[in-house]
Amino acid sequence: MGQTLADLPLRDDLREEEPYGAPQLDVPVILNVNENPYPPDEDVVADIASSVAAAARTLNRYPDREALGLRTDLAAYLGHDLTPAQVWAANGSNEVMLQILQAFGGPGRTALSFAPTYSMYPEYARDTCTTWVTGRRADDFTVDPEHALAQIEQHRPAVILLASPNNPTGTALPLDVVERICAAAPGMVVVDEAYGEFRRDGTPSALSLLPGHPRLIVTRTMSKAFAFAGGRLGYLAADPAVVDALRIVRLPYHLSAVTQAVARAALRNAGSLLARVQELRARRDETVEWLRENGYRVADSDANFVLFGTFADRHAVWQGLLDRGVLIRETGPDGWLRVSIGTEQEMAAFRAALQEVTA
Amino acid sequence: MGQTLADLPLRDDLREEEPYGAPQLDVPVILNVNENPYPPDEDVVADIASSVAAAARTLNRYPDREALGLRTDLAAYLGHDLTPAQVWAANGSNEVMLQILQAFGGPGRTALSFAPTYSMYPEYARDTCTTWVTGRRADDFTVDPEHALAQIEQHRPAVILLASPNNPTGTALPLDVVERICAAAPGMVVVDEAYGEFRRDGTPSALSLLPGHPRLIVTRTMSKAFAFAGGRLGYLAADPAVVDALRIVRLPYHLSAVTQAVARAALRNAGSLLARVQELRARRDETVEWLRENGYRVADSDANFVLFGTFADRHAVWQGLLDRGVLIRETGPDGWLRVSIGTEQEMAAFRAALQEVTA
Repeated sequence: MGQTLADLPLRDDLREEEPYGAPQLDVPVILNVNENPYPPDEDVVADIASSVAAAARTLNRYPDREALGLRTDLAAYLGHDLTPAQVWAANGSNEVMLQILQAFGGPGRTALSFAPTYSMYPEYARDTCTTWVTGRRADDFTVDPEHALAQIEQHRPAVILLASPNNPTGTALPLDVVERICAAAPGMVVVDEAYGEFRRDGTPSALSLLPGHPRLIVTRTMSKAFAFAGGRLGYLAADPAVVDALRIVRLPYHLSAVTQAVARAALRNAGSLLARVQELRARRDETVEWLRENGYRVADSDANFVLFGTFADRHAVWQGLLDRGVLIRETGPDGWLRVSIGTEQEMAAFRAALQEVTA
Repeated sequence: MGQTLADLPLRDDLREEEPYGAPQLDVPVILNVNENPYPPDEDVVADIASSVAAAARTLNRYPDREALGLRTDLAAYLGHDLTPAQVWAANGSNEVMLQILQAFGGPGRTALSFAPTYSMYPEYARDTCTTWVTGRRADDFTVDPEHALAQIEQHRPAVILLASPNNPTGTALPLDVVERICAAAPGMVVVDEAYGEFRRDGTPSALSLLPGHPRLIVTRTMSKAFAFAGGRLGYLAADPAVVDALRIVRLPYHLSAVTQAVARAALRNAGSLLARVQELRARRDETVEWLRENGYRVADSDANFVLFGTFADRHAVWQGLLDRGVLIRETGPDGWLRVSIGTEQEMAAFRAALQEVTA
């Protein structure tokens, strides 16, 4: 038939857009999408399989639309005296964020963030017809509260998205900055803690700010610390009324019985799955140190990745690493590259390849 | 804190909205959401569990973003010489429809259907800020092509949604009506064949119209015939350029590795899972016959449910059935009720309860 995308009556603002996503390449060392390098132990695999077998016996029935068992388990995991009514879950943080913007964004409304930040945010805005504006981060990638308040005053955003730790820079937000932004915000404030479990000692979570901030939403994911990227489970904590709002826009039965069962099995095995987080944090700190010793600029990181640079031709460095079997991410401000924290062997391969490429 | 939904800065057109969904009640006979009453056999459960175990061993990695293995299996299942490039899948037909309206609907655009029809359609339109309009079905719930063409001329819809078999009426569309609508449509035409496998002999599928109709989309689900409602897998067949359009708006990694593995296991076991479709079709025809013999109006049904009536007080009949442990659905035009086709025992319970309630 020979029809192309240009022939179709696509929404006008989607023309020329490309599907989002890093290359999925088959190389020996994959350090490009901030995955946890450690697969689940065999006893966790067995628990997941038997949980799915149990769920499969009623797979002809629709799942629990409210996913109450899973939300109960997530609330218990988060602590902070959270109740299931304050917790919501969806197919990855992607869907959590989409639902937030469906409920509180939309045509004629604006979402604000501070760049450089997570590259999916403008896609969520575009997909929900929300106007997307960004303030800027300082040279060290922190958010200057005076600048933030000026941006809020100027744009009156319906939703403010604050990644903490930020992707791709690894920068966590001090709670007093979050509090000042909450106080000034005319709408909802989302603190995206996808990498929250990797925070350095002394870096607090915005979960502690939920009491007294009814328009604050803290999002999390099981993709990273739980080594559960393939399971696709994002979640959030917020005031129960916020959860009620999301229940209006969620597609009914959005979480399959299998997803609910597998996520609950992972939460039951949190001890085993999270066991490597401490090790990854230590290796992250070592990677920061090594890069600095070798003369690179490196952003302070509270996440499981490190942004480093700067390179006159970062693409050449990225390609040189790939040629040596090490895939990292060409993202962030011009001249910078991002490397995820892998196993000890993977980081050694990264260091060796980087030294070769820049020799 | 005492905050209510009304206190939140919800999108204006969501105010007063309620979360969608039939009551999830624990009663002996559940015939309200068109589920397949037969759970998978134990050998299918075992195949699902071992497939998930295999997927779980790399659950720390993101899934295949293109779900190419699953799309290959779905194309093979559908037949009609379809290729994986013509097939797309998402978390239930819900997400398939949302993506279609995200790509081709949106602010300033209109989606058209013919009422009474599936009650989620206006929600997809609302969630994507697409204007929702409906023409009407005839007294026998068929779509009159002259009326349809007039509605198309009047509203110039970006997307036309045609359920065939229609929910909640069970009515299938003749292909010549679909062809005339396609010829007149200025945008995309979606034929929703969620219940396609339950068509009576001689009722064709719109899949046969795909060649030569580059803006036609045929959607399907594994929820019904495959007895896979808990697995949440919807899919579609269309021109490859349509799939390219959906890849722009899909959330990356929208289908988990587990969902892909479980759906592929179900497709491998299609023989076993679809074995009861023939039986359910026969029981559907018997239910139509029995209801007509007992003096009810009954819509012709090509689905796994039957719309019947009419009742001066349908809610009282619905409640009376529920009081007797039989949950059906209060939906469709005033005075009508919808019953899903269950097991032989469940349908006997339904018939007995209906006779009591209406005695």
